[in-house]
Amino acid sequence: NLPKATSVSVYFAVMIVVHNDVQHDCYCFSDFYMRIFYSLLMSSQVVGSTSNPQVSGEGLYFCDGQRKVDYVLDRLSISTEPADHEMHLIRQEFEANLIEAGLEIERDRELKAHGPSFTRLHAPWPVLCREAEFLKIKVPTKTVRSQCITVGCNISLWRKLNQPFQPKVSHQDHGRTKFLSHYTHKLTHSFLNTHCHAFISVEMTHCCLCLKVLHEEWAKYSAFYKYQPIDLVRKYFGEKIGLYFAWLGVYTQLLIPASIVGIIVFGYGVATVDTNIPSLEMCDERLNFTMCPLCDGACDFWHLSTACGTARASHLFDNPATVFFAIFMSLWAVLFLEHWKRRQISLSFSWDLTGIEEDEVNPELSKHSGTLTNVQTSTHKTWQKNTSEKLSIFLQTICVRVGKTVLSSEKKLTWKDRLPGYFINVSSILFMFGLTFSAVFGVIIYRITVSALMAMSPDPETKSNVRVTVTATAVIINLVVILILDEIYGAVALWLTELEIPKTETNFEERLILKAFLLKFMNAYAPIFYVAFFKGRFAGRPGNYVYVFNDYRMEECAPGGCLIELCIQLSIIMLGKQLIQNNIFEIGIPKLKKLVRALKEKESAQTEKEEERPPQQWNLDYALAPFEGLTPEYMEMIIQFGFVSLFVASFPLAPLFALLNNVIEIRLDAKKFVTELRRPVAVRAKDIGIWYNILSGMGKFSVIINAFVISFTSDFIPRLVYQYMYSQTGTMHGFIDHTLSYFNVSNFKPGTAPHNSEHGDITVCRYKDYREPPWSADAYHFSKQYWCVLAARLAFVILFQNLVMFLSLVVAWVIPDIPKTIVEQLKREKKLLVDVFLQEEKDKFQLIQSLFAKDANLQPSSHMLHVEKQ
Amino acid sequence: NLPKATSVSVYFAVMIVVHNDVQHDCYCFSDFYMRIFYSLLMSSQVVGSTSNPQVSGEGLYFCDGQRKVDYVLDRLSISTEPADHEMHLIRQEFEANLIEAGLEIERDRELKAHGPSFTRLHAPWPVLCREAEFLKIKVPTKTVRSQCITVGCNISLWRKLNQPFQPKVSHQDHGRTKFLSHYTHKLTHSFLNTHCHAFISVEMTHCCLCLKVLHEEWAKYSAFYKYQPIDLVRKYFGEKIGLYFAWLGVYTQLLIPASIVGIIVFGYGVATVDTNIPSLEMCDERLNFTMCPLCDGACDFWHLSTACGTARASHLFDNPATVFFAIFMSLWAVLFLEHWKRRQISLSFSWDLTGIEEDEVNPELSKHSGTLTNVQTSTHKTWQKNTSEKLSIFLQTICVRVGKTVLSSEKKLTWKDRLPGYFINVSSILFMFGLTFSAVFGVIIYRITVSALMAMSPDPETKSNVRVTVTATAVIINLVVILILDEIYGAVALWLTELEIPKTETNFEERLILKAFLLKFMNAYAPIFYVAFFKGRFAGRPGNYVYVFNDYRMEECAPGGCLIELCIQLSIIMLGKQLIQNNIFEIGIPKLKKLVRALKEKESAQTEKEEERPPQQWNLDYALAPFEGLTPEYMEMIIQFGFVSLFVASFPLAPLFALLNNVIEIRLDAKKFVTELRRPVAVRAKDIGIWYNILSGMGKFSVIINAFVISFTSDFIPRLVYQYMYSQTGTMHGFIDHTLSYFNVSNFKPGTAPHNSEHGDITVCRYKDYREPPWSADAYHFSKQYWCVLAARLAFVILFQNLVMFLSLVVAWVIPDIPKTIVEQLKREKKLLVDVFLQEEKDKFQLIQSLFAKDANLQPSSHMLHVEKQ
Repeated sequence: NLPKATSVSVYFAVMIVVHNDVQHDCYCFSDFYMRIFYSLLMSSQVVGSTSNPQVSGEGLYFCDGQRKVDYVLDRLSISTEPADHEMHLIRQEFEANLIEAGLEIERDRELKAHGPSFTRLHAPWPVLCREAEFLKIKVPTKTVRSQCITVGCNISLWRKLNQPFQPKVSHQDHGRTKFLSHYTHKLTHSFLNTHCHAFISVEMTHCCLCLKVLHEEWAKYSAFYKYQPIDLVRKYFGEKIGLYFAWLGVYTQLLIPASIVGIIVFGYGVATVDTNIPSLEMCDERLNFTMCPLCDGACDFWHLSTACGTARASHLFDNPATVFFAIFMSLWAVLFLEHWKRRQISLSFSWDLTGIEEDEVNPELSKHSGTLTNVQTSTHKTWQKNTSEKLSIFLQTICVRVGKTVLSSEKKLTWKDRLPGYFINVSSILFMFGLTFSAVFGVIIYRITVSALMAMSPDPETKSNVRVTVTATAVIINLVVILILDEIYGAVALWLTELEIPKTETNFEERLILKAFLLKFMNAYAPIFYVAFFKGRFAGRPGNYVYVFNDYRMEECAPGGCLIELCIQLSIIMLGKQLIQNNIFEIGIPKLKKLVRALKEKESAQTEKEEERPPQQWNLDYALAPFEGLTPEYMEMIIQFGFVSLFVASFPLAPLFALLNNVIEIRLDAKKFVTELRRPVAVRAKDIGIWYNILSGMGKFSVIINAFVISFTSDFIPRLVYQYMYSQTGTMHGFIDHTLSYFNVSNFKPGTAPHNSEHGDITVCRYKDYREPPWSADAYHFSKQYWCVLAARLAFVILFQNLVMFLSLVVAWVIPDIPKTIVEQLKREKKLLVDVFLQEEKDKFQLIQSLFAKDANLQPSSHMLHVEKQ
Repeated sequence: NLPKATSVSVYFAVMIVVHNDVQHDCYCFSDFYMRIFYSLLMSSQVVGSTSNPQVSGEGLYFCDGQRKVDYVLDRLSISTEPADHEMHLIRQEFEANLIEAGLEIERDRELKAHGPSFTRLHAPWPVLCREAEFLKIKVPTKTVRSQCITVGCNISLWRKLNQPFQPKVSHQDHGRTKFLSHYTHKLTHSFLNTHCHAFISVEMTHCCLCLKVLHEEWAKYSAFYKYQPIDLVRKYFGEKIGLYFAWLGVYTQLLIPASIVGIIVFGYGVATVDTNIPSLEMCDERLNFTMCPLCDGACDFWHLSTACGTARASHLFDNPATVFFAIFMSLWAVLFLEHWKRRQISLSFSWDLTGIEEDEVNPELSKHSGTLTNVQTSTHKTWQKNTSEKLSIFLQTICVRVGKTVLSSEKKLTWKDRLPGYFINVSSILFMFGLTFSAVFGVIIYRITVSALMAMSPDPETKSNVRVTVTATAVIINLVVILILDEIYGAVALWLTELEIPKTETNFEERLILKAFLLKFMNAYAPIFYVAFFKGRFAGRPGNYVYVFNDYRMEECAPGGCLIELCIQLSIIMLGKQLIQNNIFEIGIPKLKKLVRALKEKESAQTEKEEERPPQQWNLDYALAPFEGLTPEYMEMIIQFGFVSLFVASFPLAPLFALLNNVIEIRLDAKKFVTELRRPVAVRAKDIGIWYNILSGMGKFSVIINAFVISFTSDFIPRLVYQYMYSQTGTMHGFIDHTLSYFNVSNFKPGTAPHNSEHGDITVCRYKDYREPPWSADAYHFSKQYWCVLAARLAFVILFQNLVMFLSLVVAWVIPDIPKTIVEQLKREKKLLVDVFLQEEKDKFQLIQSLFAKDANLQPSSHMLHVEKQ
């Protein structure tokens, strides 16, 4: 009952991979070679031996029906390319090299002129064992039944309660048994060979039907409430993807408490809205505040009570509980990072990754293999040399055409070579920032002009809906701009990183991520930052407004305060981005691409008419989309993390929306990986790399942003100041009056006063600011209250920032990075390993001695000396 | 020409060490045993073999003249103790165990009733080799001539310039040759034995006359300008002490640029003092500001120009360059920490400490030895069991007397057992904080009362010197209090930590350090914090002063601003503390102690009259003071680091004074270690432990403190605000007038106006504050300027803190933690090691095979199977 596409159990790699690497100034056959083998080794733990009938699909064997297909290389037959001959040469060299490394190869018998043609690889067992040694894969050496790894799992009640959330994974001892493992590297040969067999026989009991389980217990929306079978994910997709899903799981799990607290805070706002004095005062028609007009000429004076709705809405998000929530969320972010650190260490322990250093692009590795198989290495080298020369010629011929400078691996890039790249980089990024800002500014202009035009319209209905219409359309424009620029920026970041010619692939990835993050972050948050910190602050005051293009007044915030606008902006962008990205970019476009691919294939099949045989599994798998890295997935989540942490003070429901999104996101991604993508090559990874730094940086940034949102965007501080410094009664009564300054209508500049006012003879109107009244000596200057409130706001920022930073330090210090159970486990393992080694050594030594004794009886001399000389 | 005391080449340890450990809830023969052996192993690298005539002193051999004395145990003959019998039993067990571990023992033949008697240990070579294996000491396996380790050392000009600063260390290849090393642990036996010999022969060429070189090139004031021979220090004293001196060296070195910049900043102040408008205005008698009296009744009105001196002095420290200097020093602190991190890693690489995990109190280690010598282990265990029972009885009998609860190692301490300890801890620390604060408050009261009394005195000379006399005496009282409390707090911290019964010695040390640091930090800085942030802020205003004890007005800052007072306070406490601590505590008291010890010994010698033989070396060494840990040394430096970083904005010369002190401090400490102390046991350490965290915490704290000092203590912000917001001309002219408020003399409370004024008919006097004038509606309330300046101050704090934090992050991110050369070196080493191992394995495998082949020819069966079964 498995759908056909799920049997994506062979790895795909396109030959062009090798070329990409050359472009990045490093030529890595060894790197590519390492990857193949790592995938194969991971796979051998999963798919197991050929004797298992349940996994052996139809097309998974060589023609002889004996040797399993472990890896499929896609030989693109680029007959239209000019350098076809070089390509052919390279491919031949490459395949020859694979054969010499011990792999067995099967090519498609008929060579098609168009369409894909495949080279299938089979890795015999001894070859895998040998490579495991040099890839430092730890293999189980001895079974040690460990005590509980997860905290509290020995409390049976907890386990019982947790039961329904656990995925049904067949092996009952999942997560309970830990094999004592060690690098095969360090093991002696006899030892390795013995244990290599033990290793397969042990692992086999675990992992039959891995894909089926993943499909049923993981990649299903109905499993949304369950934990993910992370160990299985890792086994099937490798550590890098496993870590992504583990991270996503931890993040989603920790969003639950944040959402609950967010709902409570929102609930508090809802519950107190009817007893809140400032909003009551705003709605009170008896107070009768006549406000100055919102635009020049066309607009009339208005009563503050007409803005009652926004005032009430504002209170939902702008209440004292928000301050508490902002502190809570800052600590939550720290807690999340600490928790993830622990989880990561637990995982790397149970996945036997402890002690691995990331020797990316490790030329020594291939040299190590060399110490064993000297012939092979020398071939490597000549091959490398030959091919790299050819390649560089080949690539130069190609790339000169497209205007790229490609350098061969022999030549070291100097500072001068790199300078133009860096220069283009910096200037492009600045240009992109400019683009983002102009987009934001464009929307502002749109808002200003449209609202001015609508205000001038004679239709009273148009007039009354100005704010709603303009805000809604502007936010939607913003959203669309963000989505479009997002895609552009992704491409630009890739292009820029390629220009830099980074040395290694990890390096490449890190630079790409940093650039893409910077650009996309700016893109997503620039309009929000504008609303939070700049909107309405440069509008001027009645009689002295600030104008853009000499005609249009700068926009002001809604009478209820800027926070409610921030809240609307935030929620629409966040929800819109998530919905559109999930639906269109993650479901729609892949489906479309698949359709296009299918159509194309059909066409080519029709023209060639040679599709007689039933399609092999690799043909079916080839029809799937290739895996394009985890960067977009992470990026989406990190930007979301920004919504949850950066401006959470203005929108307590953000965690809830993020949670809802993520519950779907996990299964959506799972579905994609299981059914829509070619099986990605397994990549070893110890941690989530630079993403952790980005997360931690955002966590730190969020503290200061939230401090500013609370103190400058919300009305929290003015209320506090009023209550404790100016209020006569010690209550909030009179607050609204206190926040409104007076303006003498006669001070309007000519032509800016309302043309035809319905409000009779008004001499003084009010506006929201702390300024001296017209009858004061320095009329319309900032009043003492203004400076007092400003000082209070700034003091709050300092207090909040330092308090939260201090608490974060305490939280990070209290929670140990490595879980206690793991520390003990590690110690125990180390001790056991030492015992095993010592025993091993001792046995061997005894053996040698006994042999010597025997030998000496017969002919006492030579070997004894030999040993001593060592 | 070496003084006698310098031949402290044997290690001392007092039996009581074992007891101390029991008191800390862990019973560690193995720990003690480990320490002895580690010292011996380090020593064996230094003192070398017995064949070296230059180091063999008179009393350094057993009676047979053959076996070298490696370690001397002090058998305190406590005949007066009640539990003498138990003590004797324990000692016997202990020594028996040492013999069983393979050490050879010689006791003093005659047992003295009083005075020390010694047990001398000799460790035979095979025993040392065995232990080296289990202590995971890396031994050189192969000589690899490495390229330069230190950066830039291949630039010959640099080397030439640097030459005079290099200590003359005999081995010319010092620091250039690095031996390829690896844990003996991982090596096979035959391998170990071969290389162990290689190891001594190699090391021997290095390290003859180690102590002599240290004495001549290190522990001398005349060598103050030279680098320290850190490698030699480490060889002779072990890593822990080596790291301390290395750290001190790095710190002192980095103080040089800080001092230079500090001097420049101070020089800027000196150069601009005559053109500085505010201080010129203050000194200008024509401006004629009549100030309100400084005390009630007795004091008269006064002219601001009389405070000209402090105004000019104030400018030296309170000028725009200070802001730059504060930013510079914050970054300097980050740079220092990063630099130290790199140095630490370089050292741990060249000392072969990479990859060592600190398994403190590692019972597994003794078990590992157990796998080899089973008999020994079982003895260990029975011994451990027996002795610990006896010990617990013994200690209970002793400790019940002194009121301590001692728990045997068998019993696990529960939460309940620890609670009282924690409770006493928290309450004591709070009490000590209270004590510190009351001391500070006491000095304030002293200042207030004495200045009030002196102001009332009829003698005009007394009156004119009030401020100088009071300030000077108060600071000296402060200093004395600090020095006394410092000693008390040290003892209290020790007592409190013992109450907590920490599990391991590292744990013990960390807790002790944290507590001692907290207390001493509070103690040293409380008066400074008071002056910086509280003094003069609660003094009230004319007509409404704040009184203490109903009679005395709270003190105000000097007219030149609080910064100059802070500066005086800081410099006197810093200099006084350093001078007194160096002279009295580090030179005086040890000398006194020595004298007392010598006198006592003479006395006992006179009474016993058995001192016929010339004293042995160990008798001489015993006369030296025991080594009491590095904590006081570090603590002194950390508190100094606080002076350099925390309040550097107010005293730019602090780095210079610290530098001068440290140049002496290094040689002083060196002298102490070489000539005044018994040779401490070598302790392995990878880093400086918790001190790094304390340093980094202080660095972070210093940012916010400096921000507040600049914005609130100095007049920087008011000057800026005046210049850009209030000044009519855009210059500083009129600033002094602007900072002074008006007071109507008729508003003085009855009896507080000057009794007999010389100033005729004054109606209005001035005071330094931003308040409304008497003719305003809300007279004497804070004016708009006050709030404006406050807002500016707070904004500056936010700006400064975030800017510096951001720059610090950038600095820490730009400087890689591990120097590039070390990374490459490590990679190369790893590769070479792998080669060595593989070769080793291969050879052995071939040997076995060849032996098998031979064996099989004779009798084909048994062994083959044996190998396969492994």
